[in-house]
Amino acid sequence: MRKLLLVVGVVAGVASAQERVDWETVGRIRLEATRNSQVMETVQIMTDLLGPRLTNSPNMRRAELWAKETLEKWGLANVHLEGFEFGRGWTFSRCAVEMTKPTEAVLIAFPEAWSPGTNGRKLGEVVRVSLESEADLEQQKGKLAGKIVLLSKAADIKPPEEPLFKRYKEEDLEELEQFPIRPPRDEEWRRQARKEWTFGRKRAEFLMAEGVIATVEVSSRDGGPVRVMGTPAYRIGFPEGVPALVMAAEHYNRLVRLVEKGEKVELAVEVDARFLDGDTKAYNVIAEIPGTDLKDQVVMAGAHFDSWHTGTGATDNAASCAVVMEAARILKSLGIKPRRTIRIALWNSEEQGLNGSRAYVCQHFACWEPQEKPKDDLPESLQEGERRLVRKKDFEKLAAYFNLDFGAGAIRGIYTQENLAVKPIFSAWLAAVEDLGAKTVAVRAVGGTDHLSFDRVGLPGFQFIQDGLDYMTRTHHTHLDTYDRLQREDLVKNSAILATFLYQAAMRDEPLPRKPIPSPSTSPR
Amino acid sequence: MRKLLLVVGVVAGVASAQERVDWETVGRIRLEATRNSQVMETVQIMTDLLGPRLTNSPNMRRAELWAKETLEKWGLANVHLEGFEFGRGWTFSRCAVEMTKPTEAVLIAFPEAWSPGTNGRKLGEVVRVSLESEADLEQQKGKLAGKIVLLSKAADIKPPEEPLFKRYKEEDLEELEQFPIRPPRDEEWRRQARKEWTFGRKRAEFLMAEGVIATVEVSSRDGGPVRVMGTPAYRIGFPEGVPALVMAAEHYNRLVRLVEKGEKVELAVEVDARFLDGDTKAYNVIAEIPGTDLKDQVVMAGAHFDSWHTGTGATDNAASCAVVMEAARILKSLGIKPRRTIRIALWNSEEQGLNGSRAYVCQHFACWEPQEKPKDDLPESLQEGERRLVRKKDFEKLAAYFNLDFGAGAIRGIYTQENLAVKPIFSAWLAAVEDLGAKTVAVRAVGGTDHLSFDRVGLPGFQFIQDGLDYMTRTHHTHLDTYDRLQREDLVKNSAILATFLYQAAMRDEPLPRKPIPSPSTSPR
Repeated sequence: MRKLLLVVGVVAGVASAQERVDWETVGRIRLEATRNSQVMETVQIMTDLLGPRLTNSPNMRRAELWAKETLEKWGLANVHLEGFEFGRGWTFSRCAVEMTKPTEAVLIAFPEAWSPGTNGRKLGEVVRVSLESEADLEQQKGKLAGKIVLLSKAADIKPPEEPLFKRYKEEDLEELEQFPIRPPRDEEWRRQARKEWTFGRKRAEFLMAEGVIATVEVSSRDGGPVRVMGTPAYRIGFPEGVPALVMAAEHYNRLVRLVEKGEKVELAVEVDARFLDGDTKAYNVIAEIPGTDLKDQVVMAGAHFDSWHTGTGATDNAASCAVVMEAARILKSLGIKPRRTIRIALWNSEEQGLNGSRAYVCQHFACWEPQEKPKDDLPESLQEGERRLVRKKDFEKLAAYFNLDFGAGAIRGIYTQENLAVKPIFSAWLAAVEDLGAKTVAVRAVGGTDHLSFDRVGLPGFQFIQDGLDYMTRTHHTHLDTYDRLQREDLVKNSAILATFLYQAAMRDEPLPRKPIPSPSTSPR
Repeated sequence: MRKLLLVVGVVAGVASAQERVDWETVGRIRLEATRNSQVMETVQIMTDLLGPRLTNSPNMRRAELWAKETLEKWGLANVHLEGFEFGRGWTFSRCAVEMTKPTEAVLIAFPEAWSPGTNGRKLGEVVRVSLESEADLEQQKGKLAGKIVLLSKAADIKPPEEPLFKRYKEEDLEELEQFPIRPPRDEEWRRQARKEWTFGRKRAEFLMAEGVIATVEVSSRDGGPVRVMGTPAYRIGFPEGVPALVMAAEHYNRLVRLVEKGEKVELAVEVDARFLDGDTKAYNVIAEIPGTDLKDQVVMAGAHFDSWHTGTGATDNAASCAVVMEAARILKSLGIKPRRTIRIALWNSEEQGLNGSRAYVCQHFACWEPQEKPKDDLPESLQEGERRLVRKKDFEKLAAYFNLDFGAGAIRGIYTQENLAVKPIFSAWLAAVEDLGAKTVAVRAVGGTDHLSFDRVGLPGFQFIQDGLDYMTRTHHTHLDTYDRLQREDLVKNSAILATFLYQAAMRDEPLPRKPIPSPSTSPR
């Protein structure tokens, strides 16, 4: 096949290295992505049919198998599930909450993941109590048996004067091109998080010992969305606590106001939830398009497949998984023979702390290993003590990793993760997709998702810049994170852009330049 | 007491009649409204404590008594409940809906008011069927036993690119000052509405006869709010039908997509709801500040006290009821002795068709009486045939009626309901409250609420212009219509403005000018 190789000199005002863009192949990628897109069909199955994909839930087990079968059907190579130790599964099938006094009302609430059910319908008086310290526990000791405890303050609900749905404007993108100087890394967060974890265990044991019927916290979104995450009880040995609900802000606030006015408030709660103690491993889904002359080297794209449990995890992060799968489908269906092996990963347990990607990177590429055995059972990210980087056999072989997890919005560019040397390379590639709206290279580092697992060990891992849409206002971890929030045009564009980046990275003569290996304390979180 | 009487000549560009404004008293009203406001305490009781106030529900019965006691406690005169024939009561205490196949999910739905419960938890297969005509019923006969029927198409969910919360801008208010020429009244709506009512009865009977477990319709708001009204089964003799749910748009759409993809979908539904067949009368709450030299004449303010049943009816219409009560409290607490009697009304059953206000107007002021006995049991508003206006004893005594029911937003002016002669009068009064943001006189007519019951018989009934806030986007008839949506500043302003209007109308030498009595077909709806 004849390739049209152009040399891009100056792109978007940046003096580029002599980075070649294969416009002909990128053009074929574009047309496959736009003419024959399967991305919406794929994401609809993930969301509507498979449902939310909490790590180690029955839904997620089905989803892992479905992904494997689908990728095999598409002809990808080396499709397999790769397990890592996670902990307990959990699911829920009912959550009915009613106010029975001072008047009847049906209230909207969801259980936190990995919180127990109520074992039938339970009636209890509502009290508003802060349990933020051991002194609080001491003070409430003996007072909370048979009670339903409101743990949060009332939400501060403000009029929604700004649109809930936004895309980047030109001036926002220009600002992103500026490199902000980060303050020195503050390790106080770890001390605080360790303290909270340890107190969380004590509080869970306290609530069980006292015989509290249920706790209720307020949703951190109002106006409809109920935002719900989980407890640490997926970790074997962590106490299950008592039924833990998160309630719609308007309903929660009503309870707080009534209680604070001295009214006797009673709720009926019925939660059917169950822990699952079979296989404690969670699984990443891996598939490849084998490379040719540089096949030992690998270019990866990934997105986390797990979600929280109340919506269907559409924008967080089925949409990105569908885009990753679609990019692989596009390249495969075009019969492209990449120089390097292209590998995609659907990560598991991102939501509990990037667990799937970290386990994978640790297994294959490199690991920050503790110098001595941890003294407690805290998650790895909270453990203290010196660590050293242990390189694994494929450390030098990872040429690039591209991550998608900033909602389901259109890709508008890419963050280089403080790796200046990739700027001219990405600028050149973006020239081929700028008419899809993606043109910005932001040298700054961003955190919060799986590219960090690569970045932290010095591998070139990157997250794209994506339009925010209504991710932070409505869908992030809420029950409204459903298929309806997805914009087809965005996902089609993103499939073309990701396939372009994978192809370019797989074909160039050199792997992407790496930045100096960071110390564990210099990565963003 | 010395009164400072100013003559307002030119107000807001309008050449005014010699309309006197009592700035001193209006100033005292302002300070009582702003310094000693009780409006938020009042509306909190109505919403948080009393709950939604569906006509003839147990909550509404409590609310009627609470309002009467409160107005008596405040020293108002002639406080009483005034009944009119309405129909059945209804309430619900539980609504739990779960998807059980193809995967488990907790879904958000509410029952329509005056729909029956499920009598325990019922499992049924989901089908999507249109039942819009008798041909549809014929076609589905024998096919729907034990099914849960999705009656609506999937919602067309759009990104929320505009702010959900809005106030009038200057240009909006300027536009409102223009008088639009209405097209000729089209009576087709009545033919259509009669047809729908008659078909609705047949469909209800069909669903019962077929043994359908429940019907589900989609909320007409998405992104959180579930918008729910009721069936006509409050009318004695109308068939109760089967359990009728309205579901969150995202959850409903998921079901439709799954069914349309050929998946077997099963739901479990459990609705506890009950009809109440005691007193079939509903009651308006009436209270007065007696007049002096013109005490036989009456100046009224009103707002409907009833609400739908899923929120707490805060913006529709507890807030306005609290403002009406607060305006009376302000005038009473200032010891004002109005010339005319000031009377407030908290209407019942506005939501089913302005029933409380129409019954009151018909009883006291005037009635469009049918020339012959109606041939069917349709609501009065849908009956056909000639009518004639029958004047009752107080027809000439109603000097003005002011209504509040366009959400809970700040008053920005008033609609004159096509009564041009009141324009200079209202302009003069608004000069005294323009620093509260209320300055616009819109001569156009508006419909949809209780001032129409006055307007239709030729009485001077008016609705204020109010900022929309998030009424049409989030709260109108939804489960999110709660106390949290209320803006204290708006309700305090509105109390001062309404008290000012009541005072001015009660004190002027003449009643407000009336426009020619309309024919039944020229009023807006």
